Amino acid sequence: MSETFFPQDWKRTHFCGEPRKELIGQEVILNGWVAQRRDLGKLVFLVLRDKTGKSQLVVDTSKNKRLDELTKGIRHEYVLAIKGRVRARPADQVNTEVATGEIEIEAEDIAVLNTCDVLPFPITDKSDATESLRLQYRYLDMRRDVIRENILARGKLVRLLREEMHKAGFEDIETPFLYKSTPEGAREFLVPSRINPGYFYALPQSPQLFKQILMIAGFDRYYQIVKCFRDEDLRADRQPEFTQLDCEMSFVDQEDVLTIFTDIVKRTVNTFFTRDVIGEIPRMTYQQAMDTYGVDKPDTRFGLKLVDLSKLVKDSEFKVFTEAVEKKGIVNALRVQGQGETFSRKRIEDLETAIRPYGAKGLAFAKVKSGQGKESWQSSLTKFLSDELINIINKTTEAKPGDLLLFCAGPYQTVKAGLGALRNALGKELHLYDTRELNFLWVTDFPLLEKGDDGRFIAMHHPFTCPNEEDLALLETDPENVRAKAYDLVCNGVELGGGSIRIHLERIQEKIFSLLGLTKEEAEKKFGFLLKALKFGAPPHGGIAFGVDRFAMLLTGCEAIRDIIPFPKTQKQACLMTGSPAPTSEKALRELYISVLKEEVEKAGISKHA
Amino acid sequence: MSETFFPQDWKRTHFCGEPRKELIGQEVILNGWVAQRRDLGKLVFLVLRDKTGKSQLVVDTSKNKRLDELTKGIRHEYVLAIKGRVRARPADQVNTEVATGEIEIEAEDIAVLNTCDVLPFPITDKSDATESLRLQYRYLDMRRDVIRENILARGKLVRLLREEMHKAGFEDIETPFLYKSTPEGAREFLVPSRINPGYFYALPQSPQLFKQILMIAGFDRYYQIVKCFRDEDLRADRQPEFTQLDCEMSFVDQEDVLTIFTDIVKRTVNTFFTRDVIGEIPRMTYQQAMDTYGVDKPDTRFGLKLVDLSKLVKDSEFKVFTEAVEKKGIVNALRVQGQGETFSRKRIEDLETAIRPYGAKGLAFAKVKSGQGKESWQSSLTKFLSDELINIINKTTEAKPGDLLLFCAGPYQTVKAGLGALRNALGKELHLYDTRELNFLWVTDFPLLEKGDDGRFIAMHHPFTCPNEEDLALLETDPENVRAKAYDLVCNGVELGGGSIRIHLERIQEKIFSLLGLTKEEAEKKFGFLLKALKFGAPPHGGIAFGVDRFAMLLTGCEAIRDIIPFPKTQKQACLMTGSPAPTSEKALRELYISVLKEEVEKAGISKHA
Repeated sequence: MSETFFPQDWKRTHFCGEPRKELIGQEVILNGWVAQRRDLGKLVFLVLRDKTGKSQLVVDTSKNKRLDELTKGIRHEYVLAIKGRVRARPADQVNTEVATGEIEIEAEDIAVLNTCDVLPFPITDKSDATESLRLQYRYLDMRRDVIRENILARGKLVRLLREEMHKAGFEDIETPFLYKSTPEGAREFLVPSRINPGYFYALPQSPQLFKQILMIAGFDRYYQIVKCFRDEDLRADRQPEFTQLDCEMSFVDQEDVLTIFTDIVKRTVNTFFTRDVIGEIPRMTYQQAMDTYGVDKPDTRFGLKLVDLSKLVKDSEFKVFTEAVEKKGIVNALRVQGQGETFSRKRIEDLETAIRPYGAKGLAFAKVKSGQGKESWQSSLTKFLSDELINIINKTTEAKPGDLLLFCAGPYQTVKAGLGALRNALGKELHLYDTRELNFLWVTDFPLLEKGDDGRFIAMHHPFTCPNEEDLALLETDPENVRAKAYDLVCNGVELGGGSIRIHLERIQEKIFSLLGLTKEEAEKKFGFLLKALKFGAPPHGGIAFGVDRFAMLLTGCEAIRDIIPFPKTQKQACLMTGSPAPTSEKALRELYISVLKEEVEKAGISKHA
Repeated sequence: MSETFFPQDWKRTHFCGEPRKELIGQEVILNGWVAQRRDLGKLVFLVLRDKTGKSQLVVDTSKNKRLDELTKGIRHEYVLAIKGRVRARPADQVNTEVATGEIEIEAEDIAVLNTCDVLPFPITDKSDATESLRLQYRYLDMRRDVIRENILARGKLVRLLREEMHKAGFEDIETPFLYKSTPEGAREFLVPSRINPGYFYALPQSPQLFKQILMIAGFDRYYQIVKCFRDEDLRADRQPEFTQLDCEMSFVDQEDVLTIFTDIVKRTVNTFFTRDVIGEIPRMTYQQAMDTYGVDKPDTRFGLKLVDLSKLVKDSEFKVFTEAVEKKGIVNALRVQGQGETFSRKRIEDLETAIRPYGAKGLAFAKVKSGQGKESWQSSLTKFLSDELINIINKTTEAKPGDLLLFCAGPYQTVKAGLGALRNALGKELHLYDTRELNFLWVTDFPLLEKGDDGRFIAMHHPFTCPNEEDLALLETDPENVRAKAYDLVCNGVELGGGSIRIHLERIQEKIFSLLGLTKEEAEKKFGFLLKALKFGAPPHGGIAFGVDRFAMLLTGCEAIRDIIPFPKTQKQACLMTGSPAPTSEKALRELYISVLKEEVEKAGISKHA
């Protein structure tokens, strides 16, 4: 080899995962990495790997002195080109777990294309290397089958989605990354402009307004698989840049969007698995989801529904219940099947601790026994509730002897949020579902607005969401109860996508901006170009966006976004492999008309990538 | 209609471009924009447009008082839903230029889905609106057939490229946008990090190092259609963000890359036009291209080649020629066919002015007549050149009576650059080629290095380009003459793509960094992670990147990038529609630990979007 980097006569005839019995007797050339090396003295076994799989090479060191010498120097992850003849493995050495396990390749010649230093961790499916070491050597980490397969599966998903979008008549159109910064700039990454001193671009959180403009321009159906940016505070599994399948259509109402995307999602998933994994996607209103599951993205793989007892218990002797209802709150129960005996007092206290962050004050509980009335409960509540009421509660919750009943009382939002989170935790802990199952669900009829901490309205979806026509009059009288034409696609308790019909009438858009507390001047400054465009023939339109990384995680069963993308950043938004972000020079900054606030940086402490 | 935004019974049954004679007698519903309106009193004609085309609607105002009233209020670009019956047009009104020109639709009902203000410019194929007005109202500009078709054609090209890449086994893998800033930061857009105070990301100029890392990770074949960013000084027709088809492959040499991408480009172009537009793609070395065409991206649609006369004229009496050759320069000629009589002295002086920017000092010329020797030239050169030499020059340049000969003498680079530019200008001016023709060409064997203005070496392609094995020894003795395994795809004089085999051996990469004048410390700081990765089993690899916008321009015959993308920025990197970039608040900047250098901004002058 010497300085001939990759001579054409060493080009592979097959991928490492390809050779089968049919090739026995033929000469093959493979290119790949040394995944395993076993030295039996006279025989050396090398397993060569590429992205398709592995083949076993046998070097008979007694036959060829040059190969013997060469093989001695070969270590794990060396890059080799090998020539050899395919032969059947001895019957006792057949490996049925590998596709190439019936054959092996008798080495005739080997070329070392590159060497490899001592590995920082072994390249194995299960790795006990720390995450930070793995990310630092991401190119080695990605040689692990499990990571490579995830990343390739994500690519396959993207390709299937594109095919479906194309078939459905969506045009692939790119929108800009250097977008307008807004005065607040909250959660935006800013980019200083060199050509326009003192001015800034922002990296878009989504192409929302561009896609609406494309509808106004007449493109009818648009899609894009596009990076979006959000500068969020440190959160476990969030990336500052993420990928969205972004879609928009004209001359549609909510029903059209749901129908078309039910189809697209169904076909994509079923093609991905080459079998019918999902059929129709059921629908549920936001209100139903909150009432029954306590969250707006319910995991419908299991029951454990929230049961409303407010009306039943409002006249009981238990003050916690009666006061909650008097204050327009609610009393809800969870029936945990068959766990009456298994849950200790301590464990129930842990559950209580778990719901506190949601504002819920506590849990009452009853262990259900056989018998009627008070006799059927082991609970401190028996002091306050009548036999009759207990019987009714048992009936309403469908409680059977051996079950555990958990009760929570308080304001609607806190009870629902607390029990909703508890339900998810119990579902996981008690293995109430098959983890391989995919349970899709449309959630519809979200409220248009919600009250922020300061009592002001904020848009629940975004400020361009169309209110339900039936509720238009409520915009004046009772804005909080206006439903939006907004919808989410949920799978296994994960929000996979969300969208809405947009406002296409300028006067309604202005009305919403004013409800959101934007003055005319603010609205003009932030969204003036949209308001203007709405005056020039905007068609009715709506759309949806899906989280591609999350979608891929669901299909592959990955538990972390870091395992589905090739170059993830840490929680501190750092790339450990390249050492990004990094300091830059005064000169580079001066050219951009900015400087670093050194004192503030010092106060914040020296940045440590972690 | 009132507040029902888009009732389901007004959903289109057909697109506006679809109705044909086969539908005569049937009721259709169309949704679209009013492209034309003609009021003949009793009859009103409305032409309705969507992205597929146009249909003519006839409103018989005498039949329906409500429609009469409604139609009176309808203006250009109103958004309508119409119901009506398809009928044949009267024979004298058939329009053969429109696909729907044999029919018209007798209006039965009309719903106004939205109105439109007075247009800033009419929506017509040829527009005399200023570019800045068109960009400000880009949504109206994009309703023009010509712009919409360009943008859709670009989308089609992207889809075909993806299909070809998939068929050839390339995996679609995304790389990060928030990349590491380098200390110089030249031509990079920087992004301040909030979580890492005082640190910066850079938006990548290309995913070069990520794709090399993906090869080292074992992905074998990678592609991505990806935005790249370059903060260039004001240049006509350059965008700060542009799209690249970015590709990389392992276990290949140059020949493999050229073969595979010849195939991919051929199939993409021929499928785009649904006919065989290109066959084999010819190849030419960099040296041949420079010698013959004076540029490294020759427009091979026409001849007008540069003819080298250096050896012939080196002993002549004409000092300009002899001195040029003595100083190791050259004398070249262009034979402009049949233009001996048409080019005035003034026009030739203009040509001289055109080549001055390239450093060329002047042009000598001869108008070729019939006869032999001096008799055959009308030229001031006849004083200096012998009959014999003139005859030889005529023969060498293939000059015929009526031709114009242009001569240029000086250093190689300036003569080639000057005459190369002149050749392109003359080719266009004299219509020497069919503008619809597509002439692809591979240019190979580029030099690895070139001398910068400061006499230091710079990489001609990029610092990761592999030198030709045969020239490795020259790295020590004569680096300037080392050829690179680098190649460009050129079409009609435009560089459509470029790539190289990369260095996969760490010691060679270090050698190149040192030739480029990088100290060990600098190399480590900028590219340390690459050098490290090369130590862990990097396979031989190489790739290529294509300019998607340019590719689309060539296929559509567009002359400006602004006509092929939906939201272009001006030369000053501004988006006139959204008003981007924009100022931001002190508070937002403080959160990013930066501030604007106000004095510097004032010195630079207030930014004006233009």
